[in-house]
Amino acid sequence: MNAKAFAPATVANVAVGFDILGFPIEAVGDTVTVTKINQPGIVRVASIEGLDGLPFEPTKNTASVGLVQMLKDLQPNFGFEIAIEKGIPLSSGMGGSAASAVAALVAANSLLDKDQRLSNEQLLKYAAESEGMASGAIHFDNVAPCLFGGLTLTLPPKKGESAAPLTIAVPENIFCVLVHPDVKVATKDSRGVLKAEIPLHSHVQQSAHLAAFLLGCLRHDMALIRRAFEDCIIEGQRKHLIPGFDAVKAAAMKNGALGCSISGSGPSVFAWVDSKSTAEVVKEAMIAAFHANGVAKVEGWVSPISTQGARLVP
Amino acid sequence: MNAKAFAPATVANVAVGFDILGFPIEAVGDTVTVTKINQPGIVRVASIEGLDGLPFEPTKNTASVGLVQMLKDLQPNFGFEIAIEKGIPLSSGMGGSAASAVAALVAANSLLDKDQRLSNEQLLKYAAESEGMASGAIHFDNVAPCLFGGLTLTLPPKKGESAAPLTIAVPENIFCVLVHPDVKVATKDSRGVLKAEIPLHSHVQQSAHLAAFLLGCLRHDMALIRRAFEDCIIEGQRKHLIPGFDAVKAAAMKNGALGCSISGSGPSVFAWVDSKSTAEVVKEAMIAAFHANGVAKVEGWVSPISTQGARLVP
Repeated sequence: MNAKAFAPATVANVAVGFDILGFPIEAVGDTVTVTKINQPGIVRVASIEGLDGLPFEPTKNTASVGLVQMLKDLQPNFGFEIAIEKGIPLSSGMGGSAASAVAALVAANSLLDKDQRLSNEQLLKYAAESEGMASGAIHFDNVAPCLFGGLTLTLPPKKGESAAPLTIAVPENIFCVLVHPDVKVATKDSRGVLKAEIPLHSHVQQSAHLAAFLLGCLRHDMALIRRAFEDCIIEGQRKHLIPGFDAVKAAAMKNGALGCSISGSGPSVFAWVDSKSTAEVVKEAMIAAFHANGVAKVEGWVSPISTQGARLVP
Repeated sequence: MNAKAFAPATVANVAVGFDILGFPIEAVGDTVTVTKINQPGIVRVASIEGLDGLPFEPTKNTASVGLVQMLKDLQPNFGFEIAIEKGIPLSSGMGGSAASAVAALVAANSLLDKDQRLSNEQLLKYAAESEGMASGAIHFDNVAPCLFGGLTLTLPPKKGESAAPLTIAVPENIFCVLVHPDVKVATKDSRGVLKAEIPLHSHVQQSAHLAAFLLGCLRHDMALIRRAFEDCIIEGQRKHLIPGFDAVKAAAMKNGALGCSISGSGPSVFAWVDSKSTAEVVKEAMIAAFHANGVAKVEGWVSPISTQGARLVP
């Protein structure tokens, strides 16, 4: 008996919500097939397609580590074997480790006995733990939108609480441009460059950006979204890891983007644009700017702010 | 020719929005009467009632300093004389300097020739400058709600921009309890205790609180407001300035408050409560806790989150 789930790529941080805000991208994602095996407590990674170099040890692959914990907690009389199809490039800042974790959990959950089956809120906890293992810090800005869909703000849990994912409606005319330059930035390195402290006035400014950005989405106020779309804390500390970042951002803005910043921990760069046709122009301009800065291989996508999270697929 | 304006007391910071979020309190406030005088460019403070010790020099009183700048910019062929009635206690954390500045500006604006009359957005700039003079730092969390009414988030201006005040609807069943212990905390001292830097993880947690709090208001989700109602940055650094703060907060929470924190820079303490009758109980409990901690003189109010800002009065 097996089940297959698709989990989308996600853009995390979204300029204004470091570690707490993210949204999924349509069409790009990871797929995981989970098969029940007659070995209680055992998780086996049977195959990994689409990427080389990922670990097969069940406690080191983000797709399996959540399942290991799930089996430990629920103690069903079976185990899982998983087959991973990676659609998301490695260390791209597109939420690949989150997507594999979430796809595996959604598929495995559907194989549990009905009385053991978990809610999405419970799956979120396992997904966040997998993500924490992969990136070095538990954060919800990829796993929550990957699981729930939509622009998702997650209130981190305090002791004894569960995380609270909150979905914010985004105007339908907004499209995301996501551009991935083929240069390697590991999430752990990208976290390592961040200072442990920030100025209080930056907190004041940046939290105002977050609040105004969310209000802009809810009010369909493009001018407010544009004005609030700014990261005065993280982007400046990380952008040197991305060749040509300033030129790519300038190209996006010059061609009509509402805003542009680093996707997750990079090196992918995303922009929001208020029409699909302009989004296509922005995408080409961003790709051209990466090329002009010596990055030969660049992929790009245009996607709505997808309201669909992970789901079972045939 | 003269005009009189009332400007309400305000609760700033509101636990989750240091320097950017505030709301007005009904009934408590300052009133300023402005009279045209035949001396262009001159502002004269004629009288101050209700409080001793405030300066009469026009460049040092927050009610007059905004008018001085307004006259400089607009150059009308007259000046202003002002009479101030203080209803807000001095250095109480209830937005007294903002209220005097805003009341004076609103009254004076109505005396300008029609073609010179300013928008509330333009008045906000003058009010913020007055407030900056009084407190040592320009911030909008008192002046914006005082002028516009309602729970108001202000996106601070970047160079060449004006501040963007944004009003957030609050469920009508929410009442504010505001309690003022008669102990002196100057805003400048209260700013002085704050560290210039904060941990990045506190920024992440606190900006999630802000966003979730605003979403809770918009969704009428009392459980979310309650959960997000927490200040992990400022309150801990300032509460030692307020005798018995922990006991007062515990009394509020034990009696059913959604949350409780310092009003502005203190020493007043405020709580949100989801019914008027419970708010009255919470008020008495907070006052009793101050008394038990050696504060003899304590005033308290129960008010809706007033949607009315400053206005002309007969």
